[in-house]
Amino acid sequence: MITFTAPTIATIENNERRQQLQQILDLKTKPLGALGRLEALALQLGMIQGTTKPHIEQPQIRVFAADHGLTKHGTSAYPSAVTAQMVENFLQGGAAINVLARQHQIELKVVDAGVDTDFAPHAQLLDCKVRHGSRDALTEPAMTEGECLAALENGMKVAKEAPGNLLIVGEMGIGNTSAASLLLARLGDVPITDCIGRGTGLDDAGLQHKHDILTQVLARHSEATAPLAALAALGGLEVAMMTGALIQAASERRILLMDGFIASVALLVAERLAPGVAQYAVFAHHSVEPGHAHLLTLLNAKPLLDVGLRLGEGSGAALAYPLLQSACAIINDMASFSDAGVSGQNH
Amino acid sequence: MITFTAPTIATIENNERRQQLQQILDLKTKPLGALGRLEALALQLGMIQGTTKPHIEQPQIRVFAADHGLTKHGTSAYPSAVTAQMVENFLQGGAAINVLARQHQIELKVVDAGVDTDFAPHAQLLDCKVRHGSRDALTEPAMTEGECLAALENGMKVAKEAPGNLLIVGEMGIGNTSAASLLLARLGDVPITDCIGRGTGLDDAGLQHKHDILTQVLARHSEATAPLAALAALGGLEVAMMTGALIQAASERRILLMDGFIASVALLVAERLAPGVAQYAVFAHHSVEPGHAHLLTLLNAKPLLDVGLRLGEGSGAALAYPLLQSACAIINDMASFSDAGVSGQNH
Repeated sequence: MITFTAPTIATIENNERRQQLQQILDLKTKPLGALGRLEALALQLGMIQGTTKPHIEQPQIRVFAADHGLTKHGTSAYPSAVTAQMVENFLQGGAAINVLARQHQIELKVVDAGVDTDFAPHAQLLDCKVRHGSRDALTEPAMTEGECLAALENGMKVAKEAPGNLLIVGEMGIGNTSAASLLLARLGDVPITDCIGRGTGLDDAGLQHKHDILTQVLARHSEATAPLAALAALGGLEVAMMTGALIQAASERRILLMDGFIASVALLVAERLAPGVAQYAVFAHHSVEPGHAHLLTLLNAKPLLDVGLRLGEGSGAALAYPLLQSACAIINDMASFSDAGVSGQNH
Repeated sequence: MITFTAPTIATIENNERRQQLQQILDLKTKPLGALGRLEALALQLGMIQGTTKPHIEQPQIRVFAADHGLTKHGTSAYPSAVTAQMVENFLQGGAAINVLARQHQIELKVVDAGVDTDFAPHAQLLDCKVRHGSRDALTEPAMTEGECLAALENGMKVAKEAPGNLLIVGEMGIGNTSAASLLLARLGDVPITDCIGRGTGLDDAGLQHKHDILTQVLARHSEATAPLAALAALGGLEVAMMTGALIQAASERRILLMDGFIASVALLVAERLAPGVAQYAVFAHHSVEPGHAHLLTLLNAKPLLDVGLRLGEGSGAALAYPLLQSACAIINDMASFSDAGVSGQNH
């Protein structure tokens, strides 16, 4: 049996720093706590970076793309070919994530984690293909343990080679809400009915069919309860690679700006494989994909935005990104009461 | 009796344009509706501007500052002197709104609507002072109708002279949550208990005292039920000036990016004086000031952010501003399925 040795994840806790950060925020020219969760965010960013002057530099998005063997059973609203077509769209700059990345000057690269198509080399494409799509999880594990380990290690390498101190992991993979739902059901011990949704747009019959197929997959892999075994069996090459990237990035104390359902499932797996990773996570938004609410509860997370997104690609994270810049600006650049000669409260 | 003649507010409704905008959004390379409220926002911005290519140029913040006669009765947690001190802080660039305006390159000017202090001239300060603070609403109307009208007209002038096609009205005025609560109670027919909160930080006894004073003020001005009369009686010079600015900006089809409680009360007054203004409003955030929830219901509004803010100054609006830029970028810059050669849904 192959095992995965995760890097050490440092705790972000430090009482003295927490108090320093809180005091700096409390002395800014505003009523105590009046900037609400923006203040908590500034504090968390300071704790993650181990500083009273949190800052973001060279933010990065990596969009992990892969196909899924399970889609042959009709679990998705879109054909598998869309995965490769969307990779081309990313490389041409036409997808939602491209538009948002350009808006916020976040560097974007696409990672071929296992698309069932071969691509011409491209400056924005990282070839980390483990295989041409995952295996059919209805009949065998989605990945062998060797493939799963390769995906995790490739993800770690992608994060290690990325510059900057903030990472967004996005994804594209027709069928990946199924893989994510399976992992949530297994690792979170949540009934599969509560883990699934319409993905990119299934109708009622499609949703029922997805439910039936996923129930069979879970039964087929009932022994796969440990995190690595579950990831391999239920998988998703891009989910495994995102998991590796999150673990590596957390081990380097980078900010993990989390997108929606799929990315958060990767974080759940990462947290199980390398406890402590989730401390580095800032949750960007509450997805309308139903499983996400359960995941957020499991991860004790309260996202910044709730605007009905269900796109993936890292789009929700990119959308919330300026709030992190605002949090840094508030703690670094606002005047204190004494700087500005402003009086305090009467009471 | 002095009356206010509001400019004409055009309807934003146009079925053909609404359908065109919806179709453009539906053909973008993403599952139908997957960008949630960002799509609805893009549509609203297109409707406001009367175009299928909404865009924002030269966004402006005007922070309206004034003092309140009612504060002599101890209704606020901070002393009145803080209004002028914060104006100086704005002019020196040290307040939250300065930091956020710089982040998003929104031009900021401070409007002296009626601060009880005279300021030296400053490039960022617009002198529109109507009087040195509003009158004591416990004993007389907060503004005479002439003063109220002057404030409305000054606000209209401020908006008229502002460049660009998006306006944020922010405010600073120790005591202005009281004025806003009074106006909400009167114009929204909401019990005063539901309209008041801790403002910038009252304790329990302070909150009870505020409740008692505001109840007396409402009783003193029980005849002031028409919008203009209520505004004059219950007032706030900055609230009246913001109201004028919102009316003028809507008449010019500008986007009104709304901050929290005080700004939304000004919008309520504006909508009563010039029906249609609220169509131009995008609601940035849900304030924790308790009256705001009632106001949002009255205005049928669902804000973009809910992050526990209660600062004012326009800070919540500035924080949400990049979401509007994202909405424009999505509709203008994303590829369509046919542009990108991406297949549609199976079903």
